[in-house]
Amino acid sequence: MDIRRDFHMAEGEGEWSYSKNCRRQQVAVRETRPMVETAVKQVYAALLPRTMVVADLGCSAGPNTLLFISSVLSSIAAAAAEQCKPPSGGGDDDDHHVELQFVLNDLPGNDFNHLFRSVEEEFRRAAGCERAPHPPYYVMGLPESYYNRLFPRQSVHLFHSSYCLQWRSQEPEGLEAWRKPCLNEDNIYIARTTTPSVAKLFQEQFQKDFSLFLKLRHEELVHGGRMVLIFLGRKNEDVYSGDLNQLFALVATALQSLVLKGLVEKEKLESFNLPVYGPSVGEVEELVTRSGLQFSMDLIKQFEMNWDPFDDSEGDNDVVVVEDSARSSVNVAKLIRSVLKALVVRHFGEAVLDACFAEFRRLVAEHLGKEKTKFTTIAMCLKKE
Amino acid sequence: MDIRRDFHMAEGEGEWSYSKNCRRQQVAVRETRPMVETAVKQVYAALLPRTMVVADLGCSAGPNTLLFISSVLSSIAAAAAEQCKPPSGGGDDDDHHVELQFVLNDLPGNDFNHLFRSVEEEFRRAAGCERAPHPPYYVMGLPESYYNRLFPRQSVHLFHSSYCLQWRSQEPEGLEAWRKPCLNEDNIYIARTTTPSVAKLFQEQFQKDFSLFLKLRHEELVHGGRMVLIFLGRKNEDVYSGDLNQLFALVATALQSLVLKGLVEKEKLESFNLPVYGPSVGEVEELVTRSGLQFSMDLIKQFEMNWDPFDDSEGDNDVVVVEDSARSSVNVAKLIRSVLKALVVRHFGEAVLDACFAEFRRLVAEHLGKEKTKFTTIAMCLKKE
Repeated sequence: MDIRRDFHMAEGEGEWSYSKNCRRQQVAVRETRPMVETAVKQVYAALLPRTMVVADLGCSAGPNTLLFISSVLSSIAAAAAEQCKPPSGGGDDDDHHVELQFVLNDLPGNDFNHLFRSVEEEFRRAAGCERAPHPPYYVMGLPESYYNRLFPRQSVHLFHSSYCLQWRSQEPEGLEAWRKPCLNEDNIYIARTTTPSVAKLFQEQFQKDFSLFLKLRHEELVHGGRMVLIFLGRKNEDVYSGDLNQLFALVATALQSLVLKGLVEKEKLESFNLPVYGPSVGEVEELVTRSGLQFSMDLIKQFEMNWDPFDDSEGDNDVVVVEDSARSSVNVAKLIRSVLKALVVRHFGEAVLDACFAEFRRLVAEHLGKEKTKFTTIAMCLKKE
Repeated sequence: MDIRRDFHMAEGEGEWSYSKNCRRQQVAVRETRPMVETAVKQVYAALLPRTMVVADLGCSAGPNTLLFISSVLSSIAAAAAEQCKPPSGGGDDDDHHVELQFVLNDLPGNDFNHLFRSVEEEFRRAAGCERAPHPPYYVMGLPESYYNRLFPRQSVHLFHSSYCLQWRSQEPEGLEAWRKPCLNEDNIYIARTTTPSVAKLFQEQFQKDFSLFLKLRHEELVHGGRMVLIFLGRKNEDVYSGDLNQLFALVATALQSLVLKGLVEKEKLESFNLPVYGPSVGEVEELVTRSGLQFSMDLIKQFEMNWDPFDDSEGDNDVVVVEDSARSSVNVAKLIRSVLKALVVRHFGEAVLDACFAEFRRLVAEHLGKEKTKFTTIAMCLKKE
């Protein structure tokens, strides 16, 4: 599995594209907006930078990164107003106002053309509107894995990453596709029949990746700079129990059904493991502490959202079932397909895509008829001292 | 004509792509390499920046911008060696070594996906080679017209632009496609039958654009920063006589033949003017002086290259004809098609493309049978005081 090349959200703007199926992530952006606003204002007020560098890591090609940009711009405008400084130029103050550089980062396989066209459209739309004044800003794209250095040392004021850090830099070490025997059998993530030693490989890959991520970003952040990180995790400490476990178990079951139908070879499935891990808040906190880096945790919290991106209702998993599980299952299948498509196509071929996600949808409907499962999101803000 | 959206070099890697047809520009990159190296070394030695920001303006999607990156990296390595500083990290000196940010800029319509894939391949290739040590570097893309601000003030150390600044920000003001009457009739650039007042519109658009370009880049450069600008111009002061005039007159003749054949409407051709101007060295120098900006001219020179990108022979226009004008004409037609394709398709439609450039090739063969015409390139290095 060559993550740099092969892993990206589904391209374009069609029915199955990520752009059209990222409402779940979009709702979460709104949910975490106050965190972003606070971080932006704190960094701005403390450092009063002439140029503020803001990076969105794992921006994908969709609309959510544009929401992020607009949220930062309005926060800066508000913060500048509090400081009684005009956020944009005009007259003698021209040399003091802040300018922003937004760096939109994703893997080299990401559809940057689509991203840049979206930025362009947004730019034109905004130019035609009456709007609150905002500081001058410049938008760039950076095609590189964030498990590598992305920036010169001490050059970034704010990192943001939304729904990416659950993804690993590779399949867990020890479970790569080329190895025999295939230790996780026909599972693709930590499932009930996954052995504890294999579960540990998933966990260790997370620990390695996340520690590296912290170290790299610490090098790149200015003192006083901040990171707002939002990613999928799990509610309990038990690595076997989490909504990602349930979700990917259903994807695995769908793939297993293709094996039974003779559409996918058993060996092919056995060599497929997702580069993913949903950590608990406790695991994340421990890695930050263990890193020994001068980070302080401004905030860490978790919240839940229904699998169905169009279902904003609240309620407990165990007592409520989904009202219209058929409709919800279509929404969930589209969401997961738009995320996993590239990996599934690369490993199993384009031909199985429809069959795989049709079966997955059926399984999701069945599941949601029994219980209303949720995504657990971890959101945190770290400050580099 | 919407230049931001519509003007880009031909995409992809096929026979007619820009990537496969930019040898002319590539040879010129080698020709101007010493200028780039000198500028890089001077900036580095004078400023010893911790982070050096280098921007390639109008990078397109092709391989030439990669040559530029590699040339800057080796210059920095050489300059660092002269300063007895290791260009890349290691030990205690880690905090002092320089890191580079390359910003690859082009219009939003440019094929950045292709560009980033090329960077990725180059990165992999280089990682597999034994190479002279080079400083850490980071590559970004910036989709925006350089007739707008691209960077925060005083944040760039070196600008480079190769074979772009002959292009204007729009068709000459006064000659836009929507105007009636169409003042330049069936010409598309300054031709023999172009009136002096229309020629002046082309010239004025250049003056406006180039002055704006100087002003914007002056704002963005650090003190002591430099610009290496390489673009097509003309040898003489006479705006009617230049190789671009000859070249685009042949494109116009090809389009006129399509009108005669009923493939293109006469009005359609009359509303088409290229956003281009090839200035003389004198005009360029005058604009730099007139700008009143604190630029000093390190160097300005001109050199000539044959139209045929695969013909590296030297000799005078008037006495030498092209040896194999048929083969040369194919090379020239491919080059010009890869540059003009997007504009021609947008204005006249995809259907005329083959016919237009087949006729153009025929005309070029005829022309080269009579005289060996050359491109005049202007290369200059400006320093911000």
